[in-house]
Amino acid sequence: MLEPVIPDVSVNTALENYLKEVTKIEHDSEIINVEDSLSRILYEDIVAKYDLPAHDKALIDGYAVNARDIAEADANNPVTLKIIGEAGVEDDKNFVISKKETVKVSKGTLIPENADSVIMPEDTLTEKNKVKIFANVISGFHVAKKGEDIKTGDIFILKQRKIRPQDIGGIIGLGYRQIKVFKKPIVTIIPTGNELVPMDVEPARTQIIASNGYVLKGFIEQLGGIGKIASIVKDNLNSVKKAIIKALEVSDMVLIAGGSAIGTKDYTLRAIQDIEGATIIAHNIAMKPGGYVLLATINGKPVIGLPGHPVSNLTSFHVFAKPVLRKISGDPRSFWQITKDTPKLEAVLTKNIKSPKEKEDYVRVRLKELDCGKISAYPFTGRSSFLSTLVKSHGIIKIPADCAALYEGDVVDVFLF
Amino acid sequence: MLEPVIPDVSVNTALENYLKEVTKIEHDSEIINVEDSLSRILYEDIVAKYDLPAHDKALIDGYAVNARDIAEADANNPVTLKIIGEAGVEDDKNFVISKKETVKVSKGTLIPENADSVIMPEDTLTEKNKVKIFANVISGFHVAKKGEDIKTGDIFILKQRKIRPQDIGGIIGLGYRQIKVFKKPIVTIIPTGNELVPMDVEPARTQIIASNGYVLKGFIEQLGGIGKIASIVKDNLNSVKKAIIKALEVSDMVLIAGGSAIGTKDYTLRAIQDIEGATIIAHNIAMKPGGYVLLATINGKPVIGLPGHPVSNLTSFHVFAKPVLRKISGDPRSFWQITKDTPKLEAVLTKNIKSPKEKEDYVRVRLKELDCGKISAYPFTGRSSFLSTLVKSHGIIKIPADCAALYEGDVVDVFLF
Repeated sequence: MLEPVIPDVSVNTALENYLKEVTKIEHDSEIINVEDSLSRILYEDIVAKYDLPAHDKALIDGYAVNARDIAEADANNPVTLKIIGEAGVEDDKNFVISKKETVKVSKGTLIPENADSVIMPEDTLTEKNKVKIFANVISGFHVAKKGEDIKTGDIFILKQRKIRPQDIGGIIGLGYRQIKVFKKPIVTIIPTGNELVPMDVEPARTQIIASNGYVLKGFIEQLGGIGKIASIVKDNLNSVKKAIIKALEVSDMVLIAGGSAIGTKDYTLRAIQDIEGATIIAHNIAMKPGGYVLLATINGKPVIGLPGHPVSNLTSFHVFAKPVLRKISGDPRSFWQITKDTPKLEAVLTKNIKSPKEKEDYVRVRLKELDCGKISAYPFTGRSSFLSTLVKSHGIIKIPADCAALYEGDVVDVFLF
Repeated sequence: MLEPVIPDVSVNTALENYLKEVTKIEHDSEIINVEDSLSRILYEDIVAKYDLPAHDKALIDGYAVNARDIAEADANNPVTLKIIGEAGVEDDKNFVISKKETVKVSKGTLIPENADSVIMPEDTLTEKNKVKIFANVISGFHVAKKGEDIKTGDIFILKQRKIRPQDIGGIIGLGYRQIKVFKKPIVTIIPTGNELVPMDVEPARTQIIASNGYVLKGFIEQLGGIGKIASIVKDNLNSVKKAIIKALEVSDMVLIAGGSAIGTKDYTLRAIQDIEGATIIAHNIAMKPGGYVLLATINGKPVIGLPGHPVSNLTSFHVFAKPVLRKISGDPRSFWQITKDTPKLEAVLTKNIKSPKEKEDYVRVRLKELDCGKISAYPFTGRSSFLSTLVKSHGIIKIPADCAALYEGDVVDVFLF
């Protein structure tokens, strides 16, 4: 009889140690058009090439004045100014006003020399080439000063930002046509298992269509990487080893799906140990499902053995492969970016859940919106071999290692996936 | 002097009325490869073409038994069974066991006829062609029954789901190669304004590079649409009108950026009113910024006039154009999908904010992670003409119409963008 297996290490310790060992990070850059940069990671700071606005400009339609000229104006005592012209947004003409003069301006036109404010039309009454002003204003009113938005040489966006739509607009507005971004990391997924057939083959009774690779590829793409699915590999030491060596040549990270445990047909550990430059950082980790994830590096490059059962596969990917992928992507993991990438909501558990002692437990849940506005979470505690439970569930809850159970009615955080 | 403008309608009423009027929805479908379907919206239910598993299968490596044969077994009183063979995952051979017989099985192999459970290796001791069993089990132990995961004819995924990575895996696992999805809606953005120049032109002092279109295009793409930026249109009734008519011919939705207010150079309202089949649903809406958003339909197709100032532009896009885009995309707006699309976090305000009475107010905030683990939100109450405030901010807070101020120390929900 075999001894029951005791986990070697906690999830946090394993991840921390692993991130330290992942040292082979290319962080190559490439130059792309700004308009194609959505969700890419900025490689260098974006610096303002000129002032924005480039000149003092009117923020509204109205009359440009020197605030001192109308300091005494109010609703009962209007001050009359002479209109010496009208500024257009299309011409570059720069008026100069003298005392008690004004220029008609509109949103975006240049503010004349000696003017400092704009009076709204509702505070004026125009008579031929004169205008009565019924209000006084503080200097600078409704004027955007030269460089008030951005000054030449200012850092507009710090490097390593994951570029959002508004960032693209801002960078284009600064006159950039191309920018330098981190290259997308390439992650090769190697599906292993004698029972697997590719999706264009009709499976026999003992076979199943290899689908883990497509799930992982989708998440890798959502995280900004390029997922490549290698050919299916049989449960055989040499085949697995060869596939890993081949994948390492063209990838920044390698995931082996299946064969990560310690059964007679599990070859991931043995294959990795056989490759020069391999370091095993953690194997038997205190989590469920997915405890037999294998965290390794080969010459500093991340190589992860993921369990083959779909639920264990995906759970260990989320817990370990995601942070590593972020690290090799150039993404700084700012707290707000993480919140954006891992949306969650609060829900009320509909069933008690027992959780293994000393292990972090990840439980899939199906959500339902209740009439009262609350959301209920129904836990699937079943088979980790069934991909369908991942499809039917909306998210996952995490039960810490020191927590032995959650109860019906408990409010839990559900991480949506 | 002009009268101050009183808003006509609340945000919620305007949006509700508008969604009702948007009736021209094509909802065309197209057939694509499953592996290319990430984030697309499913057009029809996915039905199981066969049972999964296709046959009773072992979930672990071990010995397949009939639970009745070992009902009396325990650690002190093992029951001995005869091993009549070993099942492989690659062959399709189906063993039949008689009383007190067993077959060695491994994860994924067929369960022999008359067997119903699998015994773990740690509860066994093998001696040549016999095995001692040291534990009894309940029927079904470690066996996945035929159809237990999915049964032929069952609906596996309901139509209108936004496809996630795990859904792709599930659909491929069911033997599908292609699926029907909603076509991506085409949204044309028309930038208007005499001051605008395209990004490949060096702007004169009075000109600015047109950038709103790129911001909107990015958000449209994140929402699953196709954003097309039309040529810049001058502030001229006929030009704006022609551009809208041309855009309508090839689009499911049209956004006009700039010219949505009621100034002398604002032509969006007049241009839309001039087109046959136009209905104006709302204009002057109780929100800030972006109150002069113009919600219209032309023969039932959504046409929205957005303000030109970047912050107003984006705010009104998020409040009105997003839900309409969802509606024409086929997306059912399930609550969990909305949570995924609009991630938020709680933060502590660092400054008092006054808010206009009777208007919903949207304020940009910059976040900072504090040592205590809390997050602070610094509000930008400045110029809505400055795109830089959108770039420097991490999210937005909403102040309801009946709330006149928020105070330093208040905990607010920040919607990340």
